Amino acid sequence: MAITEVPDIVIGRLPIYLRALTLLGEAGHEFTSSQELGQRLGIGSAQIRKDLSHFGEFGKQGTGYEIKYLRDQISKILHVDRDWDVALVGFGDLGQAIAHYAGFIDEGFHIRAIFDNDPAKLGRVVNGKVVRNVSELPETIAKLGIKMAIIATPASVAQEVADKLIKNGVKAILNYAPITLSVPDSVRLQYIDPVVHMQRMTYYLD
Amino acid sequence: MAITEVPDIVIGRLPIYLRALTLLGEAGHEFTSSQELGQRLGIGSAQIRKDLSHFGEFGKQGTGYEIKYLRDQISKILHVDRDWDVALVGFGDLGQAIAHYAGFIDEGFHIRAIFDNDPAKLGRVVNGKVVRNVSELPETIAKLGIKMAIIATPASVAQEVADKLIKNGVKAILNYAPITLSVPDSVRLQYIDPVVHMQRMTYYLD
Repeated sequence: MAITEVPDIVIGRLPIYLRALTLLGEAGHEFTSSQELGQRLGIGSAQIRKDLSHFGEFGKQGTGYEIKYLRDQISKILHVDRDWDVALVGFGDLGQAIAHYAGFIDEGFHIRAIFDNDPAKLGRVVNGKVVRNVSELPETIAKLGIKMAIIATPASVAQEVADKLIKNGVKAILNYAPITLSVPDSVRLQYIDPVVHMQRMTYYLD
Repeated sequence: MAITEVPDIVIGRLPIYLRALTLLGEAGHEFTSSQELGQRLGIGSAQIRKDLSHFGEFGKQGTGYEIKYLRDQISKILHVDRDWDVALVGFGDLGQAIAHYAGFIDEGFHIRAIFDNDPAKLGRVVNGKVVRNVSELPETIAKLGIKMAIIATPASVAQEVADKLIKNGVKAILNYAPITLSVPDSVRLQYIDPVVHMQRMTYYLD
């Protein structure tokens, strides 16, 4: 199957399906349907069936989807059936909240290295990880073989940090700095910018 | 002009254009083009011209867009040429980072009321705002006329909080709790879930 042809927007919905399946499973459900998932997520059931059909046949006419099975399959497709090591750059208020966020660990994302350039923060320990100077970043992430990183620095240094990460083997970056980064095509990049979300909503308010 | 017909995905790109224009302006530029914007943002220039054409004619053949003018126009379209009062519910690590995030204030989003249910946090003061008990939420936000809220609570209470917010006049919610919320069609809802972004990237890694 030509997996590479699946549109990224479909890939973007798989984690949302995964979360819904996890919640349904935790609530004790064993089976679900594209209708039930669609209703919970505000996505059309036909869309859900079409998205999943890119990867195979997961449901049965009549009984629908077995939650645990579909959950396992989507986990495999997304490569989250394993743990991922993550580097965090920036240990201000936001970086600290990210370092303490249990949601990452629950889903197998483990922050293995933390960097900042503020002498007052260096040496602090979070979940057993020491906050290191950014100057140690290249050696540390190369040694640990880290492929994913989270940038929580000020916008002014985010591009420089991204360049350093990529040069030392990082292939996927989640960027919280409010700036558009330039990265090679071979690197995945996602943004989290709450202001963009707020401004998308004020359009509808008066 | 039938503004209501503009697809939400187009509205979602306007804040990104706005941010790029702000950065260009801060860097001392006076004019830009859909090509330059497109290159910076990784969006096709034709897409940018088409998006903007929903709202009028902003550029001139040859000279392109005057940055300050286009910035002002997009601000007006998005209703961010004014300040917005915001309620924050949840004052854990994440809520505290949000309360301290300068990016909101810079863009005119002012957190006017903060709520939590942890007695240890009540009464703490952030930027002149006191952390109040969630029991005071209805009266407080109704009195302040707050229309926007940020939910940074555990997933288990997020729906209940959303219901309370909406019942007391909130029309737009930015939800950080890792759960899909059910809200009336008249309420705008945006999600921030870093795990979803991480899982969207691991698909491409092996």
